Amino acid sequence: MSPGFASKVPAVAALDWGTTRLRAWLIDGSGKVLAERRGDDGLITAREKGFSNVLEGHLGAMGAPETLPVIICGMAGSRQGWLEAPYVTVPSPIGAILAGAARVPGQKRDIRIVPGLAQRLADTPDVMRGEETQLAGAGLPAKGREIVCMPGTHSKWVPVEDGAVTGFGTWPTGELFSVLSAHSILRHSLGEHPKPVTADNPFFRRWCQTALSEGGDVTSRLFSIRAAGLLQDLRPDDAASCLSGLLIGGEIASARRRYGIGAAPVVLVASGALATLYGEALALAGLSVRTVDADEAVRAGLVEAARENGMIARTGVAR
Amino acid sequence: MSPGFASKVPAVAALDWGTTRLRAWLIDGSGKVLAERRGDDGLITAREKGFSNVLEGHLGAMGAPETLPVIICGMAGSRQGWLEAPYVTVPSPIGAILAGAARVPGQKRDIRIVPGLAQRLADTPDVMRGEETQLAGAGLPAKGREIVCMPGTHSKWVPVEDGAVTGFGTWPTGELFSVLSAHSILRHSLGEHPKPVTADNPFFRRWCQTALSEGGDVTSRLFSIRAAGLLQDLRPDDAASCLSGLLIGGEIASARRRYGIGAAPVVLVASGALATLYGEALALAGLSVRTVDADEAVRAGLVEAARENGMIARTGVAR
Repeated sequence: MSPGFASKVPAVAALDWGTTRLRAWLIDGSGKVLAERRGDDGLITAREKGFSNVLEGHLGAMGAPETLPVIICGMAGSRQGWLEAPYVTVPSPIGAILAGAARVPGQKRDIRIVPGLAQRLADTPDVMRGEETQLAGAGLPAKGREIVCMPGTHSKWVPVEDGAVTGFGTWPTGELFSVLSAHSILRHSLGEHPKPVTADNPFFRRWCQTALSEGGDVTSRLFSIRAAGLLQDLRPDDAASCLSGLLIGGEIASARRRYGIGAAPVVLVASGALATLYGEALALAGLSVRTVDADEAVRAGLVEAARENGMIARTGVAR
Repeated sequence: MSPGFASKVPAVAALDWGTTRLRAWLIDGSGKVLAERRGDDGLITAREKGFSNVLEGHLGAMGAPETLPVIICGMAGSRQGWLEAPYVTVPSPIGAILAGAARVPGQKRDIRIVPGLAQRLADTPDVMRGEETQLAGAGLPAKGREIVCMPGTHSKWVPVEDGAVTGFGTWPTGELFSVLSAHSILRHSLGEHPKPVTADNPFFRRWCQTALSEGGDVTSRLFSIRAAGLLQDLRPDDAASCLSGLLIGGEIASARRRYGIGAAPVVLVASGALATLYGEALALAGLSVRTVDADEAVRAGLVEAARENGMIARTGVAR
């Protein structure tokens, strides 16, 4: 048997299992991806169909052996998920988080779920699930201080020092955009189906710059988008760009105020359009950026978690 | 005929006609209220039933003569209302705003609608309708600088100098509270029917104080309410108090940053529970407050508008 053939045998299945979506990969003993599937059977669907049924459906479709171990991250490990994987309290080394994966009982397979993180501070309690695995796969150096920005529905900003998470914060930027677009008076300004916001829209850039100079205060500017529609004939697509620029600029200004971002590049863990928008906004803030693809980061983090839990060997690493 | 009898003859009908509600009064020649009605036939209902029909229904129920003139303020004067009363651009003396009431054509009665205000600045466009009339009735001194706070769905802050509006800003605090309560992840924390927030709730006070120290940055704290539910067993009613304290404290911090509130008391134009919550929050901010009842202010402002438009005489003023 040649090494090339041997490497096509899966050693572990890895799942990023969120609220509304999941992604699953078969991984060989060296960390290489052999197969991938995406589904919209996230936590909400899986609560109805059964987590085990959903999992076995995807594994079967990829031809996974019956005893293949499985490593999972994301909301599947929440109280409303398959099994609550208790939070690890920060500060904590990233490796220790992954090693604390909780085993799902009563299953033929060895199925483990990576715990989320909890910041148990009286004034700034916070939680994350899934992003800790992205962090582990973001290729952060073992030494030095990094500020990691992971944008999304609930954007996370994480200072990491010498490979340990020292704390984190959540800015619900994506959720604010969708909730305000759909349910606030701004729905009249944005219309029903605004085009996707692009980083080269001058309204995105201008409102982002304004927000960057306001220290995270965005509520004082929200109604101006409505007023600009009434007084300045702002078009719906541009109104969406205003709102996006305002919220993203406000998030960056606020996180910068909290964490005091220095000269080192911000590590931006993002994919697609979000990566472009945040890359532009961080540049407008005068910050240098190192972008890590979010999809690759979560997969690499799951491979790392499989190693930390002894599901695949530490040797023969390939990324 | 005794003067007492004569004063019971209405000289004008006054209406505060908003999006979802209206209030109507019959006023005598000295400015005294002879009758009052409240209805939920605001702009939205009136667009279906016809503004004239709704108006005549209320006037008829109060026994108003057929030729009684009518003065109106609020969203009835918007583009979606009965007749668009064009905005007056600030800065503007308050008296000049009232005198610019627009006459509804084709009516037997003399019916006029007070214009709203527009702030035509490139970066902070803003509009108001209805609050300009509250301002006119708030008993502001003819000389000196005042900062007026008018809390609500879309809170307005207005610096007034020597009886002229120099500018204004909108903070959509009430709308953010209801939209986030109903449609964001915070709905899980607040529950379906949180009790009304009270100013003595320690969570209201603590989150307000935190927000006051953050310069108007509230988005960085929103998710903490969710996390406090998960990590600190925060109860739904207290979660609502956190959100209210956070948003109101953030509004005050932001407005203070924009307008540089000095030693003179903030003029708080509010009624009921909102007056109490904002009174407490302004006190927590170390600001002194002079409270003016919002219901009385809008009525007094409408009487003033009737005078400015020659519908009732300037002499014999009684409030």
